[in-house]
Order: sequence, then structure tokens, then C-alpha cells
Amino acid sequence: MGDAETLFRLSGLNAAYAAAIDADRLEAWPDFFTDSCLYKVTTADNVAKGYAAGIIFADSKAMLRDRVSSLRVANIYERQRYRHIIGMPVLGAEPGASETSFVIVRTMRDGRMELFAAGSYMDRTVAGPDGVLRFAERIVVCDSGRFDTLVAIPL
Amino acid sequence: MGDAETLFRLSGLNAAYAAAIDADRLEAWPDFFTDSCLYKVTTADNVAKGYAAGIIFADSKAMLRDRVSSLRVANIYERQRYRHIIGMPVLGAEPGASETSFVIVRTMRDGRMELFAAGSYMDRTVAGPDGVLRFAERIVVCDSGRFDTLVAIPL
Amino acid sequence: MGDAETLFRLSGLNAAYAAAIDADRLEAWPDFFTDSCLYKVTTADNVAKGYAAGIIFADSKAMLRDRVSSLRVANIYERQRYRHIIGMPVLGAEPGASETSFVIVRTMRDGRMELFAAGSYMDRTVAGPDGVLRFAERIVVCDSGRFDTLVAIPL
Repeated sequence: MGDAETLFRLSGLNAAYAAAIDADRLEAWPDFFTDSCLYKVTTADNVAKGYAAGIIFADSKAMLRDRVSSLRVANIYERQRYRHIIGMPVLGAEPGASETSFVIVRTMRDGRMELFAAGSYMDRTVAGPDGVLRFAERIVVCDSGRFDTLVAIPL
Repeated sequence: MGDAETLFRLSGLNAAYAAAIDADRLEAWPDFFTDSCLYKVTTADNVAKGYAAGIIFADSKAMLRDRVSSLRVANIYERQRYRHIIGMPVLGAEPGASETSFVIVRTMRDGRMELFAAGSYMDRTVAGPDGVLRFAERIVVCDSGRFDTLVAIPL
Repeated sequence: MGDAETLFRLSGLNAAYAAAIDADRLEAWPDFFTDSCLYKVTTADNVAKGYAAGIIFADSKAMLRDRVSSLRVANIYERQRYRHIIGMPVLGAEPGASETSFVIVRTMRDGRMELFAAGSYMDRTVAGPDGVLRFAERIVVCDSGRFDTLVAIPL
């Protein structure tokens, strides 16, 4: 599989991932990961300082599912909309490694729009026996260190 | 034609569509559609509620041309600049169907920049006898329900 | 090399270019250009008026390197983060010519995010004897005419 093909498959995966979150199909979100996986949200400052700990951490698809269930229980009152815009991946040296920039715009119920998050996905993807590409690792490195409601939805 | 090839052609179409609007070559905009077509601007709330009506509606290339002519007559005083950033399409189940996220940044004459619109294109494209891909349907689903000047330019 | 392949290679170049700047690896930035090159930052208004002069101008990789050195000396106190989101290129009529939209989000030390720049890259790329694609010309046309700190970092 050439680089162009790889880039296309990764772009397709990212687009589908973003569409699921932005359309509030959160229950589909864990399926973009392998059963045993790493999903971590951290900040660029933390990464620069060598801190391994994340603000959000999950190491299995089951934990991701729990997270979605909690969101569904907690998040019944206010409804904002999120819109991911995701760049083209930069392939890494390690097999399956890539890095991809993202920006997320949030639209409030009253119609106001704001920049919600910007940063970089540090990913490791693997193709399953079904040929489908999934995230074995997705470390979400946010440019901003502010985490208010930022932690609520999957990034 | 494989999926990768399809994604590339769609991305190319979207990039050219955006470039025409952002460079104020609005007269070129109708040519991205088939003669008989559907162009509709609506909101995510309206779609969620099952409302079929749009804020803007056109069902032929001629109507799109009329729209551009009206804009040229009306819009002679203030000049803002628009910049589309368009994601990678997610292919739909129906032939030619795809969905693509977008964000539009507006730059005012005094240099201020703001988020103008964010949302999703729900598209159906067809290749003409000339091999050129065009929109048979482009439903612009805006995340925000605010429509002031939003309705003025093609999205 | 077909159009799809060309688009992929250009997208890959743009993604790597953006990743170098956004990760503050500015020393890698000049290497995205040919030895003799044109890097110019200008505004859409200037281009519309036919003004050839740019706000920033460099015509060799050596000048780009000097620019990075100056930035490193001057810019030791405040540290913001930049995040490029780059669209799909639109291929031009001339060999190697393309045009690509971008938006840059800036995150301040206190976590605030803002739209920093939006505009279009007018590029001419060439493949070197090593097969690597580089910018022989990159004219950065900004939608906004405001240039405060905008001129500090490579765009």
C-alpha cells in the first residue's frame, strides 16, 4: 500500500470519526478504536514538559463506552454543536504512526460560534482482520491548557 | 473507480467550488451544479426536527444564476472576504452521496476575522457526459440558526 | 503522474510544512523551499490592486534561514501556539502551479484561541533530483490587511 493510499485511508477514517461526533452519534465513537487501545487528551505544554499523564485517559474500548454512557446521563440539558475540521495526516517513522492537525468550532444554542479546541492527533492505527482501519492509539494534544467543558465530549 | 479516487475527485470539486466563491468569482458558482439541481441552505435544528423547508432554495442552475445577479446588484458597497476550509468527504450509502464538513471564516474590511459559518454539505454528485463531476444536490446544513447576512453569499 | 497523485503529494507537502511551523521546528521551514525561491506575504487587497510588493519577501533559502535566526533572537519571551488548517489544493494551468486555502488559529499562553490568519497560498512546486517536492514559489495572500505580529512567524 503506497503512501497516497495510506493517506487516503487515514483521511477517510478521520472524516468518519469526526462526522460521528459532530452528528452526536457518540455511541459509534468507541468503534473507531481497537478493543485494547489508548485514548488520551493532554496539552501541548504537558507534552513539552514530558508529563505522561493526560486529562482524559482510557485504555480499552469498554472505557470509551462507559465514557459515552456518562455523557448521555450528564449532558441532557444543554446542546451545543461541534464541527471538526481535520488536516491531512503526516505519516510518522513508526509503522502506523501519523500526526494530524485539527480545529473544532462550537456553535451554541443561541447561534454564537467559537473556537473550541485546536491541536494535533498523535495516532497509531492498525487494520483489523476485517480490513478496517482503527485507532490503537489516539493522543489528543490540545494547544490550549484551558479545560472547562472541553473535557466533556470526545475530541 | 475506487474509493480513494472518488474521495480525491470530490475533494477537488469542493476545493474548486470554494476557491470560486472565496475569490469572488460568483458567476462561476452555478456551473458546479447540474442544470436541474437542488441547492438548499438549512440548519441542523431544522434537519433534526424534520423540517424540509430551507432558508435558501433553488432547483435549477438558472435560479442559481439569478441569485448571483441579485447579489451583484445588491452587494456593491461592502466587501468582505470569505475563506472556506473544507474537510474530507464521507461517502454515503447511496450512489454519489457524500457528506462533508466545512467552516467559513469572514474577514471584514477593517481586517477583523470571525467565524462566519460551520456545518455540513449533504451532497449528491454526478459525472456529466463530459466526465466532469457536478452537484445534483447540495444541501448546506448550518450548525447555527442565526441567519443575518449569512444568506447573502453562496455557501 | 495523475492529478490524484499530484494532489496527494501537494497535500502531503502542505501538511508537513504546517506541522514544522506548528511544532515550532522553524529551522526545518527553509528546507521546504528550493535554494533559489520566492516567499512573499501579501494581502488580497494588494493583489487585487496589482501591487507586486509584499510585506515579507525572500528570494533564497538563505534569506529564509536568516529570518528564522532573527525570530529565534527576538522572540524569546512570549510563546504562542499556531495551528494551520490547510485545504485541498486547486491545480493551476501552469506546470507545478496550485492554490490552496488556509486558516491559522493562534492559542495564547493563557489558553485563549483566536483566528490569526486566513488566506490562500499561491504556489509553484518542483520535484528536486531527489524526487522531493519543494516550493519554488509560495506567495501567501492574506485575506486581512492587518499585520501586527502577523509578520513574525512563517505563514
